Amino acid sequence: MRVVAPLYVALVHHPVLARNGDILTTAVTNLDVHDIARSSRTFGVRGYFVVTPIEAQRRIVDRILEHWNDGEGRERLPERGQALARVSAVPLLPDAIAAITSAHGEPPRIVATSAQAGPDDARVTFDALRADLRATERPHLLVFGTGHGLAPSILASSDVVLEPIRGVDGYNHLSVRGAVAIILDRLNS
Amino acid sequence: MRVVAPLYVALVHHPVLARNGDILTTAVTNLDVHDIARSSRTFGVRGYFVVTPIEAQRRIVDRILEHWNDGEGRERLPERGQALARVSAVPLLPDAIAAITSAHGEPPRIVATSAQAGPDDARVTFDALRADLRATERPHLLVFGTGHGLAPSILASSDVVLEPIRGVDGYNHLSVRGAVAIILDRLNS
Repeated sequence: MRVVAPLYVALVHHPVLARNGDILTTAVTNLDVHDIARSSRTFGVRGYFVVTPIEAQRRIVDRILEHWNDGEGRERLPERGQALARVSAVPLLPDAIAAITSAHGEPPRIVATSAQAGPDDARVTFDALRADLRATERPHLLVFGTGHGLAPSILASSDVVLEPIRGVDGYNHLSVRGAVAIILDRLNS
Repeated sequence: MRVVAPLYVALVHHPVLARNGDILTTAVTNLDVHDIARSSRTFGVRGYFVVTPIEAQRRIVDRILEHWNDGEGRERLPERGQALARVSAVPLLPDAIAAITSAHGEPPRIVATSAQAGPDDARVTFDALRADLRATERPHLLVFGTGHGLAPSILASSDVVLEPIRGVDGYNHLSVRGAVAIILDRLNS
């Protein structure tokens, strides 16, 4: 059985953690836009929101999208435009939630991600989330953080937090691009 | 059971395919070095070879490694140095094979990757390769291509070619960074 719940991805640039625990705003990375769009397209994600409150950064995203969706990039590499057609830049996470709510008539279940293990009863497992996605048509929004991860306020206001990807010996410093690819693959497997 | 075979990764910049089928040499991408090193470290890969015949490109890789392994990057973000400690730049794939052979006393089994499906009997499945990696101590080298994929000469000279990652509807344009992350996760799951 496949995923039936409409699945969305958000990449948050604010509020996220700095290495020292401060809250900061990170810059948009070009390859985050591309790679996560390609992974999203591969695994049937309905929309990918690049979340940044900085207007100039959202304009950068819009220029990337324009180049590949309508500009010369479209002719040179049409597959890239197919992936980027599902990307949009929004100021804050509630803007992504509002867009999904508007499209589906009900608010999405918010699934935050973290590289840190939490208390067991505070993390949804991959198996449980995979089962949920096959059993409901309620939209789901997977939320990823840049920098050193999502701010506590986002974890606290999400419906569930997904368990971290565990490697072979506890090293937990995947790139967010790699983590998104692995999580989407696991939820579709 | 875990993977017992010593596992290595190579990212090939020559010979690879251009969109039109020509053979070309691609440029090293900084984030390929970082992301694939981080995925490799997460999943216990013994070594990651960045393969490029262009000496100036290998020097760029060496400068990245120096910054993070010995330079100021090491103090700022020690986890990155842990990942990059297993990276080296070599001119051609046979140089990677020679280094592995020298370390283990036997040549590695060469597992090429491709986003293209082949005749079924010419592709090893994820399940079969996962079982092999738990049943042998022979080193294995996973070979990834940049550009539009590995040249036919590399596919032809490999021992096996791994089946492609299949998404939900046949779209097969993951980034190589995403593909490496997913493949290493699948082989360790």
